[in-house]
Amino acid sequence: MSLPQPCPTTPSPAEPLDLAAAAALEGVRGANPLVGAVISGPDGAVLAVGHHRGRGAPHAEADALTRWRAARAQDRALAAVDPAACTMHVTLEPCDHTGTTGPCSLAILDAGLGAVRYAVADATGAEGGGAARLARAGVRVTGPTGHAASAALTDRWRHVRDAGRPWVTAHLAQSLDGQAAAADGTSRWITGPASRAHAHEVRARVDAIVVGTGTVAADDPRLTARDAVGADLTVQPVPVIQGRRDLPAGAALADRADLIHVRSHDPHAVLATLAAHPGPWPHGGSRPGHLLIEGGPHVLGAWLAAGLVDEVFAYTAPLLLGPGLPAVAGLPVGTLAEGLRWAPDPSEGGPVRTLGDDVLFHLAPTAKD
Amino acid sequence: MSLPQPCPTTPSPAEPLDLAAAAALEGVRGANPLVGAVISGPDGAVLAVGHHRGRGAPHAEADALTRWRAARAQDRALAAVDPAACTMHVTLEPCDHTGTTGPCSLAILDAGLGAVRYAVADATGAEGGGAARLARAGVRVTGPTGHAASAALTDRWRHVRDAGRPWVTAHLAQSLDGQAAAADGTSRWITGPASRAHAHEVRARVDAIVVGTGTVAADDPRLTARDAVGADLTVQPVPVIQGRRDLPAGAALADRADLIHVRSHDPHAVLATLAAHPGPWPHGGSRPGHLLIEGGPHVLGAWLAAGLVDEVFAYTAPLLLGPGLPAVAGLPVGTLAEGLRWAPDPSEGGPVRTLGDDVLFHLAPTAKD
Ligand SMILES: NC(=O)c1ccc[n+]([C@@H]2O[C@H](COP(=O)([O-])OP(=O)(O)OC[C@H]3O[C@@H](n4cnc5c(N)ncnc54)[C@H](OP(=O)(O)O)[C@@H]3O)[C@@H](O)[C@H]2O)c1
Ligand SMILES: NC(=O)c1ccc[n+]([C@@H]2O[C@H](COP(=O)([O-])OP(=O)(O)OC[C@H]3O[C@@H](n4cnc5c(N)ncnc54)[C@H](OP(=O)(O)O)[C@@H]3O)[C@@H](O)[C@H]2O)c1
Repeated sequence: MSLPQPCPTTPSPAEPLDLAAAAALEGVRGANPLVGAVISGPDGAVLAVGHHRGRGAPHAEADALTRWRAARAQDRALAAVDPAACTMHVTLEPCDHTGTTGPCSLAILDAGLGAVRYAVADATGAEGGGAARLARAGVRVTGPTGHAASAALTDRWRHVRDAGRPWVTAHLAQSLDGQAAAADGTSRWITGPASRAHAHEVRARVDAIVVGTGTVAADDPRLTARDAVGADLTVQPVPVIQGRRDLPAGAALADRADLIHVRSHDPHAVLATLAAHPGPWPHGGSRPGHLLIEGGPHVLGAWLAAGLVDEVFAYTAPLLLGPGLPAVAGLPVGTLAEGLRWAPDPSEGGPVRTLGDDVLFHLAPTAKD
Repeated sequence: MSLPQPCPTTPSPAEPLDLAAAAALEGVRGANPLVGAVISGPDGAVLAVGHHRGRGAPHAEADALTRWRAARAQDRALAAVDPAACTMHVTLEPCDHTGTTGPCSLAILDAGLGAVRYAVADATGAEGGGAARLARAGVRVTGPTGHAASAALTDRWRHVRDAGRPWVTAHLAQSLDGQAAAADGTSRWITGPASRAHAHEVRARVDAIVVGTGTVAADDPRLTARDAVGADLTVQPVPVIQGRRDLPAGAALADRADLIHVRSHDPHAVLATLAAHPGPWPHGGSRPGHLLIEGGPHVLGAWLAAGLVDEVFAYTAPLLLGPGLPAVAGLPVGTLAEGLRWAPDPSEGGPVRTLGDDVLFHLAPTAKD
């Protein structure tokens, strides 16, 4: 959709969408797209910046409006600016449907903003985007304007949505020499508390966590998302076990009524089982929106080899273990050119972060994937 | 040595040694210690900050004086400040001997600074530090004041000097899963051009590069330090081969008149051979000051296991290779507690740096080593 009304505000010297896209990258990847928004005044000055922080959190437009209202409440000059002379710049077309939050189209109308400029069309199908509603209500709407940085925010998310599967995050905790355990199987703890805390933040985002029967047998994990003091959070991901073996008698997961056991080695079989599951999933919806593959090495290798991983969090400790248990197993790589190349993911604090003495790599599939 | 004359300048609100120590960390480790210096005015204001950039470069005091003179040349108010009312704060006692550069004691006297405050005594033995000369010349000298961050800058360097051996840097280029080559031996290139450029910067710092006979047989390396366009630099490290086998006929290194071949598996035998070598070494001196262990996996493992590595540069590419050639071999680690733990090294751009898509870990031995 392209509504060619000219934008009446003086353009800001910097492209506000650049600022919105940069803000969007502070968000987290998953079931929802990364979105950023900027509200500019009649002279093009930036009055507020907002972004979406992930499922359950306000959309970028709502976040920007909250900050804009807070700024107006504190500053007379800002409060005197006519909202109708202000423009909302947003990396993705404002939504028009009620999910966890109300439609952004209505929020923008409520605020009385005179213009909306968006980079990329929403195209969520039947529901449609909010541009049409905004235009009907008299808002000057411009978009989709196109904007490479904005498009890059949603490319992978869109690809996953179009494939009709959940966003898949792979988790890898290892020594600098790529081992998930020492030769005798000891692995607690290779990474430090800050890495483990981040891993729990990721667990809290997802609808389900997949582990192999090997990990269940070796570690007897609970797979719950826990807070900083180790207490279980209210919303818990569904535990999913992949593999043909039965659970060992007395396994901690055996008590979980929501446990799903997929007796297959094929990641696609896991996806099919989850898609057929009636839900509702922990974060709402009848389909799982976000899946975490926590390992072990064989299950990780299978999802990676199948090209079904949308992002990798690799927690790497400054530790050398020599020959132990490689963190990823079974990759069909015989020569360098067949190696699985990843790219730095700039979202959520950047592609590389120190977590205590550990280093977190946040990786994205390379363009060809 | 402690010369308790009070410092007549108003103390600056922040401890100038903190600033000096932070500046020192921008330097590079090796044969020379990390040193930082700050010149403050009569009111405690910081007038200049300097640090040492490694062998051949000016000492921190000289660097600070150069910047102080440049600032005075541009600013009348600064030029009007009486040097005798200024203080040089330095993390290490100023030197009193002529090496590649003149004695810092004389440089300070030349500049007419009235006071010197240093954190840690030089204690290079016979040569002695510059504090005594400065005090004799009428400079108000305070030190060693003690200062944890300053002491931390030289602890490892001092340990190596006291052990009478060169500083040893280990180089490790690998995939995220710890492989130095794919299963079929292909390894060019796992890491990208930015990593390789940094590796050449490190080569340029050292007196000698050690590789195993296995690497010579597999890669036929030249081991020269090259600039950004691939041209050999003027000063070249001495190539050292470790292992019992002869060089393959026609090996590139066979032409090097300065080649040293140590027919042993023991890193201590390599150190002994280098210590007995008459020199002069590429960067001057009758003893090698800095050694680079470039690999391969077995030689790296031997130096790491012997506890003879003072810093690790691990270039890690976002690539998964599956089972190939592990970057480090032969570590005597059977269980997690025996793993070789490293610590982040804050010097030279921080413990973790992105180099293109790669990540450079800069690691230090943990305190127990
Ligand atoms: N550091 C970490 O991040 C981390 C995370 C998890 C686990 N671990 C460690 O990993 C170790 C377990 O290793 P693991 O490789 O046995 O774990 P795993 O990958 O969890 O389990 C492997 C088992 O899962 C089944 N399986 C399911 N899909 C498969 C596939 N596509 N290919 C092959 N097998 C598949 C097979 O068992 P069936 O015969 O039942 O089919 C296989 O034996 C433990 O020591 C654990 O501590 C480390
Ligand atoms: N990615 C990287 O950073 C990197 C760097 C260098 C090499 N490489 C790769 O490493 C591969 C070669 O592996 P490698 O392990 O054979 O290389 P290596 O460590 O260079 O050579 C091993 C050989 O060195 C001798 N040696 C000397 N000291 C030893 C010790 N303490 N323990 C065991 N052997 C010792 C032995 O040969 P003798 O019988 O002669 O005594 C041994 O076979 C090549 O594919 C090369 O491309 C990668």
